[in-house]
Amino acid sequence: MKNSQVIFQPSGRRGEIPEGKTVLEASRSLGVGIESVCGGKKSCGKCRIRIESGIFDRFGITSLPDHLSPFTEEEGKLIGEKERAEGFRLACAAVIRGDVLIFVPEESRTGRQVVRKEASERAISLNPAVRLFSVTLPPPTLNDPLGDYERLVAALAERFGLQRPEIDYSALIGLPAALRQGNWTVTAAIRMEREILAVFPREVEEAYGLAIDVGSTTVAGYLCSLKTGKLIGTESLMNPQVTYGDDVIARITYVIDHPDGMKKMRGAIIEGLNHLIRTVTGDAGLSPADILEITLVGNTAMHHLFLGIDPRPLGVSPFTPAVHRSLDIKARDLGLATHPAANVHILPIEAGFVGADNVGVLIAEEPYRREEMVLIIDVGTNGEMVMGNRERLLSASCATGPALEGAHIRFGMRAAPGAIERIRIDPETLEVSFKIIGEERWRPEVRLTGAKGICGSGIIDGVAELYRAGIINRSGRFRTDLATPRLRLTDGKPEFIIAWPEETSLEGAITINQKDVRSVQLAKGALYAGAKLMMKRLGIVKLDRVILAGAFGSYIDKTEAMILGMFPDCDLDCVSSVGNAAGDGARIALLNRDKRLEADVVARQVEYLELTLVKEFQEEFMAAMFIPHMSDAFPHLPTQKTSPG
Amino acid sequence: MKNSQVIFQPSGRRGEIPEGKTVLEASRSLGVGIESVCGGKKSCGKCRIRIESGIFDRFGITSLPDHLSPFTEEEGKLIGEKERAEGFRLACAAVIRGDVLIFVPEESRTGRQVVRKEASERAISLNPAVRLFSVTLPPPTLNDPLGDYERLVAALAERFGLQRPEIDYSALIGLPAALRQGNWTVTAAIRMEREILAVFPREVEEAYGLAIDVGSTTVAGYLCSLKTGKLIGTESLMNPQVTYGDDVIARITYVIDHPDGMKKMRGAIIEGLNHLIRTVTGDAGLSPADILEITLVGNTAMHHLFLGIDPRPLGVSPFTPAVHRSLDIKARDLGLATHPAANVHILPIEAGFVGADNVGVLIAEEPYRREEMVLIIDVGTNGEMVMGNRERLLSASCATGPALEGAHIRFGMRAAPGAIERIRIDPETLEVSFKIIGEERWRPEVRLTGAKGICGSGIIDGVAELYRAGIINRSGRFRTDLATPRLRLTDGKPEFIIAWPEETSLEGAITINQKDVRSVQLAKGALYAGAKLMMKRLGIVKLDRVILAGAFGSYIDKTEAMILGMFPDCDLDCVSSVGNAAGDGARIALLNRDKRLEADVVARQVEYLELTLVKEFQEEFMAAMFIPHMSDAFPHLPTQKTSPG
Repeated sequence: MKNSQVIFQPSGRRGEIPEGKTVLEASRSLGVGIESVCGGKKSCGKCRIRIESGIFDRFGITSLPDHLSPFTEEEGKLIGEKERAEGFRLACAAVIRGDVLIFVPEESRTGRQVVRKEASERAISLNPAVRLFSVTLPPPTLNDPLGDYERLVAALAERFGLQRPEIDYSALIGLPAALRQGNWTVTAAIRMEREILAVFPREVEEAYGLAIDVGSTTVAGYLCSLKTGKLIGTESLMNPQVTYGDDVIARITYVIDHPDGMKKMRGAIIEGLNHLIRTVTGDAGLSPADILEITLVGNTAMHHLFLGIDPRPLGVSPFTPAVHRSLDIKARDLGLATHPAANVHILPIEAGFVGADNVGVLIAEEPYRREEMVLIIDVGTNGEMVMGNRERLLSASCATGPALEGAHIRFGMRAAPGAIERIRIDPETLEVSFKIIGEERWRPEVRLTGAKGICGSGIIDGVAELYRAGIINRSGRFRTDLATPRLRLTDGKPEFIIAWPEETSLEGAITINQKDVRSVQLAKGALYAGAKLMMKRLGIVKLDRVILAGAFGSYIDKTEAMILGMFPDCDLDCVSSVGNAAGDGARIALLNRDKRLEADVVARQVEYLELTLVKEFQEEFMAAMFIPHMSDAFPHLPTQKTSPG
Repeated sequence: MKNSQVIFQPSGRRGEIPEGKTVLEASRSLGVGIESVCGGKKSCGKCRIRIESGIFDRFGITSLPDHLSPFTEEEGKLIGEKERAEGFRLACAAVIRGDVLIFVPEESRTGRQVVRKEASERAISLNPAVRLFSVTLPPPTLNDPLGDYERLVAALAERFGLQRPEIDYSALIGLPAALRQGNWTVTAAIRMEREILAVFPREVEEAYGLAIDVGSTTVAGYLCSLKTGKLIGTESLMNPQVTYGDDVIARITYVIDHPDGMKKMRGAIIEGLNHLIRTVTGDAGLSPADILEITLVGNTAMHHLFLGIDPRPLGVSPFTPAVHRSLDIKARDLGLATHPAANVHILPIEAGFVGADNVGVLIAEEPYRREEMVLIIDVGTNGEMVMGNRERLLSASCATGPALEGAHIRFGMRAAPGAIERIRIDPETLEVSFKIIGEERWRPEVRLTGAKGICGSGIIDGVAELYRAGIINRSGRFRTDLATPRLRLTDGKPEFIIAWPEETSLEGAITINQKDVRSVQLAKGALYAGAKLMMKRLGIVKLDRVILAGAFGSYIDKTEAMILGMFPDCDLDCVSSVGNAAGDGARIALLNRDKRLEADVVARQVEYLELTLVKEFQEEFMAAMFIPHMSDAFPHLPTQKTSPG
């Protein structure tokens, strides 16, 4: 039987599928979770997917609508005309007849991504941009026929001393009805004491805001009460732009090559964020209109693509961004479906490749208040680093690729239930223990089943453990002479079985292969080399502290990270893993407007180091590809068994 | 043959039409101008009209789609699906089969309204809100990779001393392309030195703005250069909302009675304004995107309906508006198709029925700088008056109805080519001279043909002359004993022929009938009574000056106006007619931002007098219905022949 290439996005999972299988069947054999309530009976409509049409050079395939069986009558009942024209199908009805690139929309995916909430334990002092003010006004009479807005403003001045705030147009439109429905007792939501965003016809206690971190691969949202500061809900999704390119450079290239590339990518992220907004508010029993303020961080390219600003200048020397300063833009102007008067505060940008996400990390970790020399690594598809202390701060950027976020790894997946997030390999028996998201216990303790793949923290553990157990050597090459059934050859290439077929929900085992190891080496090597060059620039030989940040499934295990050589040697007691510090920064800016000013100041003070211009970079990078490093010593690493080089 | 009632909007022309005639034929026999390039061959598509469906109590008819012949194949080629659903037809194809209410869209009407430009001769000192700044920036380098916005702001600070202006989102999106296309020489359009609205990739000399006066019946637009202050073009249209009600109260009632009334009326005025914007810019060789600033005046109800604010509180005691203060709202938020970053500055409101249009009159005529006691009458569908001097100013409002604007008069029409704008009747021979818009000479001098109707200034002349010639008496009743073929009875009611059938482009003569005279009496009586009550409130018995303002076809003839008794006696040398002062005020605010501040101040200082609450109003009104008045003396009127009362 003839096979076709089938690629699922945004996960990037791909494989050869015999023609005649449905897209739903293909998704199951490749471990892509697609909802299906009716079990493939074409009646529930949950398994909606979209075929992407065109020639996709980077995948080496041509995906065309007639590479799926014709649109059926049953699909016509569940998919409207407009969506049909956009390429939507039911995964259970569409039969594969040729190469296809399939996009699985967020709402059709099983297993939502997990955003760890522990980060919320940071103590954030509360001083939100939007606050609520309840007032009772004297009703107008023929002797006192003052207009509604002026009447409200007078009451706010008398009761709270507010100086004639402006009013958003949408709030003005609703003002007469609100005052009369509320019988002249209302609650005004006011931003920065300057702008009335909304007037509610009753006493309202709670106001809500959303902090958003737009990563190249993962987008995270944090719903917060602006009254208490409490984190009410978190939600994340794959950045839908991954269909157009895995990393920043690929997406800029897509804009260069496609006249509608900018529009498509902007549409994708806005649609994704609106989905996130609906989900995170819906889960909390709220509606999108309850969101009165948004803060947003992201790297410079994500920032530009989100705003609809041409990112092409970011891709060529001298890599200038369109704007550094923080911005406040109406959500409605951006197409975000929140309260119509809500503002989006976008944190400032440091440099072409050190964006608002890094500024988020800075205000969360405050290296500019520290005496000690600290390295903060924000691990993502674009790795960003800050090094220094209160005297001086350097920033730099490394194109690490998405491997450390679990993408473009053979069995990589985002941090959703079913993902392997921790791996240990016994150096004596080469037996594997692992832990999956959604389970509290480890494998040997309990017989785990249903593993779907490996997320970011799992792949770091996995490669570090392969090395520690001597299964790969310091150059990353697999040994082939080990007597364990877990090490096998597939198509002549070695791979190591992490989970046996019966432990997974796939049709086969979950493995880590040579290519996966190489991807991790490239990513960690770039980070290490960058850190070395920053130390040289600062004239230091030793780091006092290392902070690992990133939107992983779980915190990075700091020991495994050092075994892998993600950063130069440091006392392990002074290495910490803090989760998504960029997202925390967005949340801090949401809850405390003073920190926005701090962000504006520090963004201008950080010195950007363009690593690619430093002539030693290639040399350092080559040396840093080794595990943990070709030559650098790691006195703080626990003694370990290593394999011969 | 059976007749049907046919009503054309927005002109209000109505008549009985034999069934079987086309809408185009009906329009011609009723003197409604509809474009028809192909001459009714259903091929040019210029005669598109819309049938309004529903029961129209105020006209006593039920208008239904099947009161026109079925939609034809030819119409299908010229009218899209969406428009067809909205009731669009070709006037030449649709045959009348029952009562219908037909709306003629602005673009299908022949003969554009004439806005007299003489008003532009006011000397306005120039200090516009939006100004242009051309700068050349140093291009970025790897050693100076500052972002585009910060680079522009630095150059603006160095060259012009501007303090870090904000940037509109739309300008930010276009910034990278503008700087690079312009090879780092650009022109920034900046508002109030505070906000960058646009960045052009070249040196630009001219910026444009539009002043808008939204009257209940007539909407006028004035396109100006913000660089020179020059008036570049004027354009006006009937307010498309007249379909829903002739005056303010009728429109508020429409909102009360129809759940979608607000949405419909708002949609109608926005659509009308966008048409005006396209036309006035197109005629000047510009595009709507060239407009960078708009100022807008209108009475309070028009103001609210334009903004989409519920006008219902304006219709009930204590008649409170939603807002008094001036507003600055992005044109894009209002749905106006100008430059995306353009702002609309809406002048402030004085009171429930004295709106931003009156504030426009105030800053144009500046009574607050005068020593003399002045009365300013702004004649429109809603007549607004200001009386006083630098010591004290009163304002008041009268519901005059649209008669003085030429609407709801048997042969009334707006001030378009073909309208009779001046009338004289010889008291001896009862022969008529007239002048029509588009002709320089008067009738007796040249044999005029093609008269289509009578506009506002013509109807004031006509009724005053009927009285002066003794054809109507001081109570407005026609004499029936005069030996002239011009006086005739139609359906037993007297009417006076102004233009013979061969002088018109209609099928019959143009006349003034008893009902027309009554409409004028009601309107002028309301104005006179209001002025009397204001004089009483101010404790004065004599006016030093009277200023007549309004958007007429021509300036009101001050002598005819006094003959009619539109205002209390005043030395005729101190009566002046100034055209559309409200529109002039909008234009002044467009060209001089200092006058906006002046408007904000004076709007708060004027005292509003609610005439309907003054107990003598009815009595004064009854006496003022007489021509010129029941009992008041007019020592300054030239001696005249009057008919017996």
